[in-house]
Amino acid sequence: MSTNRLAKRASRLTPSPIREILSVASRPGMISFAGGLPDADTFPEVESLSFEKSDLQYGPSEGEPYLREHVANEIQGRGWQINADQVLILSGSQQGIDLVAKLIVDEGTKVAVESPTYLAALQVFKLFGADYVPYDIETVASAVSKESPTLLYAIPTFQNPSSSVYTTAQRQQLAQSCERGNTILFEDDPYRDLSYQECDKQAVCSFMEKGSWIYQSTFSKTVAPGLRLGYLVCSADLYPQLLMLKQAADLHSSRVSQRIVQNILSDEQAGLRLARLQTLYKAKRDSFDACLTTYFDDLATWELPAGGLFFWLQLKTTTPINTRLLLSAAVESGVTFMPGEAFYADGREAANCFRLNFSSTKEEDFEKGLSTLASIFKSGIAMQNPTVA
Amino acid sequence: MSTNRLAKRASRLTPSPIREILSVASRPGMISFAGGLPDADTFPEVESLSFEKSDLQYGPSEGEPYLREHVANEIQGRGWQINADQVLILSGSQQGIDLVAKLIVDEGTKVAVESPTYLAALQVFKLFGADYVPYDIETVASAVSKESPTLLYAIPTFQNPSSSVYTTAQRQQLAQSCERGNTILFEDDPYRDLSYQECDKQAVCSFMEKGSWIYQSTFSKTVAPGLRLGYLVCSADLYPQLLMLKQAADLHSSRVSQRIVQNILSDEQAGLRLARLQTLYKAKRDSFDACLTTYFDDLATWELPAGGLFFWLQLKTTTPINTRLLLSAAVESGVTFMPGEAFYADGREAANCFRLNFSSTKEEDFEKGLSTLASIFKSGIAMQNPTVA
Repeated sequence: MSTNRLAKRASRLTPSPIREILSVASRPGMISFAGGLPDADTFPEVESLSFEKSDLQYGPSEGEPYLREHVANEIQGRGWQINADQVLILSGSQQGIDLVAKLIVDEGTKVAVESPTYLAALQVFKLFGADYVPYDIETVASAVSKESPTLLYAIPTFQNPSSSVYTTAQRQQLAQSCERGNTILFEDDPYRDLSYQECDKQAVCSFMEKGSWIYQSTFSKTVAPGLRLGYLVCSADLYPQLLMLKQAADLHSSRVSQRIVQNILSDEQAGLRLARLQTLYKAKRDSFDACLTTYFDDLATWELPAGGLFFWLQLKTTTPINTRLLLSAAVESGVTFMPGEAFYADGREAANCFRLNFSSTKEEDFEKGLSTLASIFKSGIAMQNPTVA
Repeated sequence: MSTNRLAKRASRLTPSPIREILSVASRPGMISFAGGLPDADTFPEVESLSFEKSDLQYGPSEGEPYLREHVANEIQGRGWQINADQVLILSGSQQGIDLVAKLIVDEGTKVAVESPTYLAALQVFKLFGADYVPYDIETVASAVSKESPTLLYAIPTFQNPSSSVYTTAQRQQLAQSCERGNTILFEDDPYRDLSYQECDKQAVCSFMEKGSWIYQSTFSKTVAPGLRLGYLVCSADLYPQLLMLKQAADLHSSRVSQRIVQNILSDEQAGLRLARLQTLYKAKRDSFDACLTTYFDDLATWELPAGGLFFWLQLKTTTPINTRLLLSAAVESGVTFMPGEAFYADGREAANCFRLNFSSTKEEDFEKGLSTLASIFKSGIAMQNPTVA
């Protein structure tokens, strides 16, 4: 065992709750509300997917020119003027987090994060030694001004795990705060196309008139995660370094994946395909919400998510309940969920909250899964709070 | 511009000579001896490649169980007892270098490397702050004993760029040296199946009875690089951390790529396919060697590579010639090659050596390319050494 010979950052590696829970979630018969897996019914038929022999050779680290162009056009269509040469194709948006952390985060680098936020981002920044500055969008201006973080990581649209959405005014204020504080803005936008009602979605980075920023999204939610493909767009000053880091990480992303995604996105049925996907998820969201009302109305509060894949629940009990401690009982009963703890930079023990995914489970399993889960939470609360029982 | 806000490692990023030269190499009409691209004639027909709808969902970070099992079986077939649970599927073997560097290399960590060695490995270790200890296999025991490097990176079979092969005795000695020095051995073995004559190929890691080690290889050379797929096997102590780093880097590798590779490897024609590939490359190697003899016999020395994709040439002139300075003239004449400089950890200015790839260029272009290159080297030597001219 050579632990004493490892890099200091190795001591900051912790087993991922996602991976642990997902490995349980894939057991036959398990009803999983834990992960963020898309509904497999949204995936294209494999017979419709094609690529070319030339895709089998090495390719450019930046990504395929046709896909970079497509991404740039799509973004320009939102009224945001970026160029294809600012686009870097990624092997999924998790890779964007790795590249940005490598570029910016040293031991002790201050990184502002929403509280709660995407747990796998927390893990990566921590690996590189980040000191977290948790912020709330309501008070972000003062947090940035006071703490002067080097990097700020935000999921402004259908946030993970809370599903909240920043208003346009909040987006403008966040961009201004970063500009004033010389804070690099890292905007993660994986769910923007999973939108079930009108809401503000303009990229915060598009409000940045100066300063450095990285905006990223993924094809995992709208095409298929198994292809491992995403992209980032960034301010021109950061592009050369991110490109070098991309090359050092994996030379380039799968050209087969890039061709498959391009063919799907440029198909004349692409718009229809996305509309169908939104309809499917909206129906599942509403069905899940109705089922939650039946079983969790007296137990927890939540907001109807305007987009994305998650419900974020807060237990009504005033007793501090660490929802992670209820997970093993849930798993034994054939249901998984994601405890709130892992989404907090400070790893608070009893957050009284948890995340439920509604996309990957079949609608007919909602009732069984949620009724089981409600019983477990009731028992858990009763055990920790006997006077209520 | 936020350069002052970037991580310290960002200052160690340097443009890759590979990427720069490859972007030139892809110009129409260019004869490229620069990269390490496989001959596209070795690629499978796309019609023969298939995957399944279930491959479109998220998958395990370790890689697909069937592919890990296949890799383990293949390695066991060489008489080396490893288990499938020691196998980690990678998004190409470049990713293995990134993960190992993350796990082991801090600023000032001593990393022993062959001199010359694979330039993209040098770039990654340097990014994380490595202090290089260049070694020669003849004297590796004393180098390890004296310098006590934390990590030793080796390409013992068809080395890049030199194409040299360690003898079995040298392999045993290297393993012993690492064990004695508590040095973690990182063996990179991308070319082992591109073998054109009998030679020692047993993995050095298989001689390690204790200590920590990582062994990696790729499917880029024997199947197709555009799929971006490789694997590593490691001592049990390192596996949990490398897995966590893999997950943090890109969650998992493309499942479509994994299925395609598995289908090709498990096809009953797989052995025949590999034999044909070896025959094709051996013929190209011999043709390239004959052409080199015609045009470079008075200019340079080289050894016939027993495997792999490269000839490594040493200029006969005693005048120091930085071959990089001849590259622009070569490119203007429509030929590229890889100057020796980038393969040295100490970046020596005038190494009098350069690497030529024989796999990616069509055989009918060897004569034109090598005769042009010989003229350029002759002129270059004459200009830097007027008395010879």
